[in-house]
Amino acid sequence: MTIVEDAKAGQITEPMKVVAEVEGLEPEFIRRGIAAGRIVIPTSPYRDVKYCGIGEGLTTKVNASIGASSDIVDIDMEIKKAKAAEAAGADTLMELGTGGDFLGIRKAVCDATSLSVGSVPLYQAFITAAKRDGSIIHMTEDDLWNATEEQAKLGTNFMAIHTGINNIVLDRLKAHGRYGGICSRGGAFMTTWMLHNEKENPLYSDFDYLCEILKEHEVVLSTGNGMRAGAIHDATDRAQIQELIINSECAQKAHDKYGLQVIVEGPGHVPLDEVEMNVKLMKSMSGHKPFYMLGPLVTDISPGRDHIVTAIGAATSASHGCDFLCYVTPAEHLALPNIEDVIEGVKTSKIAAHVGDMVKLGKRDQDLAMGRARRDLNWEKMFNLALDPELARKIRTERASADEDACTMCGDFCAVKIVNQSFDLAK
Amino acid sequence: MTIVEDAKAGQITEPMKVVAEVEGLEPEFIRRGIAAGRIVIPTSPYRDVKYCGIGEGLTTKVNASIGASSDIVDIDMEIKKAKAAEAAGADTLMELGTGGDFLGIRKAVCDATSLSVGSVPLYQAFITAAKRDGSIIHMTEDDLWNATEEQAKLGTNFMAIHTGINNIVLDRLKAHGRYGGICSRGGAFMTTWMLHNEKENPLYSDFDYLCEILKEHEVVLSTGNGMRAGAIHDATDRAQIQELIINSECAQKAHDKYGLQVIVEGPGHVPLDEVEMNVKLMKSMSGHKPFYMLGPLVTDISPGRDHIVTAIGAATSASHGCDFLCYVTPAEHLALPNIEDVIEGVKTSKIAAHVGDMVKLGKRDQDLAMGRARRDLNWEKMFNLALDPELARKIRTERASADEDACTMCGDFCAVKIVNQSFDLAK
Repeated sequence: MTIVEDAKAGQITEPMKVVAEVEGLEPEFIRRGIAAGRIVIPTSPYRDVKYCGIGEGLTTKVNASIGASSDIVDIDMEIKKAKAAEAAGADTLMELGTGGDFLGIRKAVCDATSLSVGSVPLYQAFITAAKRDGSIIHMTEDDLWNATEEQAKLGTNFMAIHTGINNIVLDRLKAHGRYGGICSRGGAFMTTWMLHNEKENPLYSDFDYLCEILKEHEVVLSTGNGMRAGAIHDATDRAQIQELIINSECAQKAHDKYGLQVIVEGPGHVPLDEVEMNVKLMKSMSGHKPFYMLGPLVTDISPGRDHIVTAIGAATSASHGCDFLCYVTPAEHLALPNIEDVIEGVKTSKIAAHVGDMVKLGKRDQDLAMGRARRDLNWEKMFNLALDPELARKIRTERASADEDACTMCGDFCAVKIVNQSFDLAK
Repeated sequence: MTIVEDAKAGQITEPMKVVAEVEGLEPEFIRRGIAAGRIVIPTSPYRDVKYCGIGEGLTTKVNASIGASSDIVDIDMEIKKAKAAEAAGADTLMELGTGGDFLGIRKAVCDATSLSVGSVPLYQAFITAAKRDGSIIHMTEDDLWNATEEQAKLGTNFMAIHTGINNIVLDRLKAHGRYGGICSRGGAFMTTWMLHNEKENPLYSDFDYLCEILKEHEVVLSTGNGMRAGAIHDATDRAQIQELIINSECAQKAHDKYGLQVIVEGPGHVPLDEVEMNVKLMKSMSGHKPFYMLGPLVTDISPGRDHIVTAIGAATSASHGCDFLCYVTPAEHLALPNIEDVIEGVKTSKIAAHVGDMVKLGKRDQDLAMGRARRDLNWEKMFNLALDPELARKIRTERASADEDACTMCGDFCAVKIVNQSFDLAK
């Protein structure tokens, strides 16, 4: 029995209880969400995983993607990044390495964290073919299935799988064209393979077989977003939405027929006025599956500060119902993120997730306590309530005011202090 | 004749022509906007000011506030901050110093920049009284008028003036209470003075006299937001909206009767789902005056990264029609910003302004060019199109890929490169 089948049968299992406890909700709410495909809890038969619920009614979760590229391969560094991301508050990791001994690195990362770890098996399939036969176009169906099984056994327990790039989608892509091309590695690999070989995507044509593998290894299917826009002017184009439709059909089948847990991935580069619509469209198409957004980045022109660009998009998407945010680091579009980038990316996405949850879930208790702590000039309490206590403490301490109640911003003329001394407004 | 009177008389003057040129609009559009009170262009009879239009139909502008406090007084540093803010792209400065020789510092800052410089004259009035008579409650009406005149003559050409805090507002404040108190220094000073002296705010009761001073010295009135919430749970409360109503009445009178240019200030701490409403309410109340938002900060719990919190709020407010953003730096709520904070604050606000303008004005040409430059892997072009070319270049160069077309993120398996080599999608 999969967790979805348990939930449909009315069984409340351990992962549901743990997530209910963490979220402050009834286990029955979690069970119903899983049964309906609106909530997932990644688990694994191969390692102990910290249970983390993703979906409707739950707090917004943050994923940190790491992984070496052909340019930079350093196992120790990847493990450090994994641990740093977890310490910074990431709820899941994706190990997207394509360089060096990427199986060994992935295994080491899975061993080093208690978080759920995601992967993209088609990278491995294509790279295996490229190494073996000289080009990604020689990838075989078996390369895909082997990579999927192999990665599941390493303990990666959710997988981005590009089920939605089929010939119908490529017709839309070719007819419409693109300003920015394709920015998804999976999308680029698979599109190239399909066009060169004049074949349908095996992840689509043999979707049932894929589901059987995922079911056997308890892997959460995250339907990949290979057609996401990599440029604002391609946002919400016909190729992207066609892929969403196909992914949504696959997602429904995986959940209804195979009892799989399913997440649907979304864009990408999206202007601010299209973020809400993208969230609502995805929820409607997919039957309210958990929505995993890669960004969204609301402008193309801020490389170096794309974590901030993403915070704008992600706070908005989360406030409208997005469940799961893939972080973006300051190195996006420029380089492989280093450890500082990973930490900054996670911490920035956590802000966006909270801002979204303030709206989506009305979760504002910590803000209320902070407002009161500020009114009372209770600095210890302010630090403890901060999303990043260490950073807040550092900034204040390095530039301490002569007046220990105030800060150097206003010094003697602290508005809060003046009001507190003059009259009582406190609520 | 004031610029408003010129505009009403159908005269297109030099500042209107300059702003029209910069914005790529017809001078007649600017003239109508000024006549209607929907656009302002701060000018000064005391120094040469770079003309910058603020208001409906124009790009969103960014203000950087600087100024020493009683703890930190360093003229050279303030001048460096002013120059750094201008270099980083600030459209205006506010000099809010309350420490040391704040008149001398303000003069030096005005001399060091071509940007319009704003101030808050009541700080000076209250601090003069405190130094002279031992407490801010001894401030006299003349202290206010003298400070206003004196600061205008230094070349500060827009002023935040707390006209809207009257007895009607204080009744609302007292009846309703506050979780976070009052965070505005001007609001705290004036409220304390009014309650202690049991007197009406002279800036309200003698508003006509104030207008005459501002008119004489060509100062843009920016109606202060002393009742803005300093905590999410006080957002959009009755005191804030009552002040907005009074400020809007004052703004109309200043424009209609005295031919003054007027900006209306707004909050503050505002949850993301109340930002749009605050912008629309302000525009409706004030007859579509230019709206100057202080933030908004969409959560209380991220001290140390409040520039990012503000980017989320400001991008949203600008997209819904906010015209003028006051930056927030990483030091907000913790310390007086240092020069790095000032630069980061400006650059972050510029991102928010652009994201807003993409929606509000459909301004996306630079994004289009960036999308194409990325597709073409034209790195020089990408750097030149970036909001911060230096930062983008630095990140890529420090971690250069072996493949000069790609970057270290994907290395050999660059999605864009794979697609470009395989087929032609280019638009």
